[in-house]
Amino acid sequence: MITKQLATNIFNTTLESMPQSVVLHAKKSLLNWLGVTIGGINHETINILLETTEELTNSDQATILGRNKKMDILSATLINGTSSHIFDYDDTHLDTIHHPSGPVAPVVFALGEKFGTDCQTLLRAFILGCEVELRISKAIYPSHYQNGFHITSSTGVFGAMTAAGIIMEVNEEKMAMGLGLAGTQAFGLREMFGTMTKSFHPGKAAQNGLLAALLVKNGFTSSDQVLEAKRGFLNVYNSNSQPEKILENWGEDWQLEKNSFKPYACGIVLHPSIDACIKLSNVITPNEVKEIQLTVHPYVLELTGKKFPATGLEAKFSIYHASAISFLEQDASEEQFSDNKVQNPEVVAFRKKIKPFVNDSMDKEKVSANLIKQDGTEYDIYVEHATGSLEKPMTQENINRKFTNLCKDNLPERRIKLLIDRMMEFENLASIQEVLKYI
Amino acid sequence: MITKQLATNIFNTTLESMPQSVVLHAKKSLLNWLGVTIGGINHETINILLETTEELTNSDQATILGRNKKMDILSATLINGTSSHIFDYDDTHLDTIHHPSGPVAPVVFALGEKFGTDCQTLLRAFILGCEVELRISKAIYPSHYQNGFHITSSTGVFGAMTAAGIIMEVNEEKMAMGLGLAGTQAFGLREMFGTMTKSFHPGKAAQNGLLAALLVKNGFTSSDQVLEAKRGFLNVYNSNSQPEKILENWGEDWQLEKNSFKPYACGIVLHPSIDACIKLSNVITPNEVKEIQLTVHPYVLELTGKKFPATGLEAKFSIYHASAISFLEQDASEEQFSDNKVQNPEVVAFRKKIKPFVNDSMDKEKVSANLIKQDGTEYDIYVEHATGSLEKPMTQENINRKFTNLCKDNLPERRIKLLIDRMMEFENLASIQEVLKYI
Repeated sequence: MITKQLATNIFNTTLESMPQSVVLHAKKSLLNWLGVTIGGINHETINILLETTEELTNSDQATILGRNKKMDILSATLINGTSSHIFDYDDTHLDTIHHPSGPVAPVVFALGEKFGTDCQTLLRAFILGCEVELRISKAIYPSHYQNGFHITSSTGVFGAMTAAGIIMEVNEEKMAMGLGLAGTQAFGLREMFGTMTKSFHPGKAAQNGLLAALLVKNGFTSSDQVLEAKRGFLNVYNSNSQPEKILENWGEDWQLEKNSFKPYACGIVLHPSIDACIKLSNVITPNEVKEIQLTVHPYVLELTGKKFPATGLEAKFSIYHASAISFLEQDASEEQFSDNKVQNPEVVAFRKKIKPFVNDSMDKEKVSANLIKQDGTEYDIYVEHATGSLEKPMTQENINRKFTNLCKDNLPERRIKLLIDRMMEFENLASIQEVLKYI
Repeated sequence: MITKQLATNIFNTTLESMPQSVVLHAKKSLLNWLGVTIGGINHETINILLETTEELTNSDQATILGRNKKMDILSATLINGTSSHIFDYDDTHLDTIHHPSGPVAPVVFALGEKFGTDCQTLLRAFILGCEVELRISKAIYPSHYQNGFHITSSTGVFGAMTAAGIIMEVNEEKMAMGLGLAGTQAFGLREMFGTMTKSFHPGKAAQNGLLAALLVKNGFTSSDQVLEAKRGFLNVYNSNSQPEKILENWGEDWQLEKNSFKPYACGIVLHPSIDACIKLSNVITPNEVKEIQLTVHPYVLELTGKKFPATGLEAKFSIYHASAISFLEQDASEEQFSDNKVQNPEVVAFRKKIKPFVNDSMDKEKVSANLIKQDGTEYDIYVEHATGSLEKPMTQENINRKFTNLCKDNLPERRIKLLIDRMMEFENLASIQEVLKYI
């Protein structure tokens, strides 16, 4: 009865019952999501999605954020969800390496625009959508991810459905069946990392979950025990699950509070190494470096072992590039992952100096860096908590600056400031139009 | 290099190189698919899909078969693909329990209509689409299916992509990446059996595969080794695969030749029991029956063990209902699975006389039936090959009659006859309009 109980819990959980800290963190999450979405919206990935979708439909129900353009809600959800993950710069629930906003926020924006829903309801839908997907992720992490599923899309469908179900006011029975129709559409292979298809995953998860909600709202039937059934999601998509994690401490232990934001535009497992290289670069010049040894958890190299990245996208999965460029430029924003930087001969040469080593006993949030100078002297640095981690979170000012940087190509500064203000008072807005009018 | 080699094979295989028997069986498969699709199109499942989709889009690119209505190609593909599976009356590749036409034919019809493609190309696309999905199914059957995936949708995405890629003339590199983008969208839980979501599976697989083709055609990037990669489809979606089955005897061993058509409107594993009950009913009246013992493979009861079906849809997964009604009415067409029949007290009472037993050594295509009369005398029947099996296939006349029965509520008899003629000379048609004009 996990699925039905989950549907009941969703119903019974009001915005008022949530701690203020959760509401605040939700607003930061939405702001961060909006920034990365607007930031990615001019990427070739989005051009292709738009070109393809425009040949199919000509509805104008929901805004493509940052494009002064509207599409039907399913297409807008796909496109905005994809855009938010293009830079690999979105939020991360560190316990599960899940990017929670990607599959949920596009649904909140698209349906909020279509129905003119009040923003208290939208915020509740967003928080509970994230809560549901992250609790399901907790039940199957790490084996599900290790087996090769991209957890953001495979459980993201449940989050998208939950948010859509709340906004469209489906009843409890339909909420449970909607989770069924969403769960049967779970998908996403980690093999796609390093291609446009990776960012397609959260977008498609959002779209699949939204489709599930639209259909059950209209009477479509599905299983109401998708999670726990013998041939249901937990058993089929995973070898070793802990179903109790889905319901335990509901309403007390909030997953969104464990959501973190990235200061750097690449996989979060690289952030400790980037922190280390930036610190080292403050005291040593590039010419002095013979090599930089980085001791990391095996996961880190498994995810980011691309030795010879050819494009910016590939470089985001390269500990060699991320470490080299952050040493050379003291930053690792989107700019440091452009194709130009990746192909720059000086950067290519410096990448050869990066020597990662794996060590099972090293925490994946930490790194031990050892720089050996040409003259043989050595510098050691140990990063226990990277910038952006829960222990060393980005400040509101950090988040605002990141948002500003991501939006500045698309929007004038005045509007960016107003957007930040609106997003941080989200629950008081009459409708999402109060946000959209500045985009 | 399986995926790339598969893309090369697809490219190099012409319609002329295919045996005439394969071409003939492909046309029968398409005719059978068109019949079940038109037959299902007025079902509530389709009403809901149409109502939901119409709120999103107003394009008129491809026909909803049997509805005098057009939608965008993605929606039409979803709806026609779903309709074809509603009655569980579509084709079956017995080696893998895969319904091959469901995810492929909707793409052939939708793109054929949009682009005005010649029907030789469409037939080639259909045959190769089926070949690809069925070979991938062979590589992962039975463990994939046993683990709980609905194989028709989980590998159907590859078939849909293949057909769409051929019709849209993508190059080899894009074909391989398209298989990647399709494969990452693989989905479908057997837990959904008995609900509308089961028939949604082939439709959604068709739609996902078509979307993959549309995107790679426009430049979207993906992995070109989705099948064999460490975190690719074969490893992630399956515990025990035989990758060599995907390429072995390509061009010689044709999967579509092993495709079978159902004489009865329910799961194929029930057909031997239905044959047995119809035969028994020829010599014994219902009142004389004390009980009918059916010894079947464990799979049969696992799939169709619903003891107290409440609806027609549930009854298709009930050996109790299927056996009882076929004894009482000497048939098991769609009519025998209506809600009325399922709830009829006489039928409900007779269901109690059906006693299935499982036996590991019984082939799943066979049944041993033992009827015990009220007076204690017994009748034994052993069905080695059910009607519709490869050993006892439906004749062309059988197929035509099935098609006619499925279409007669929607189309006048004259058109039905013309449709059969056109479908059986499919490769000679200038375009799919030669078929659509009669629907």
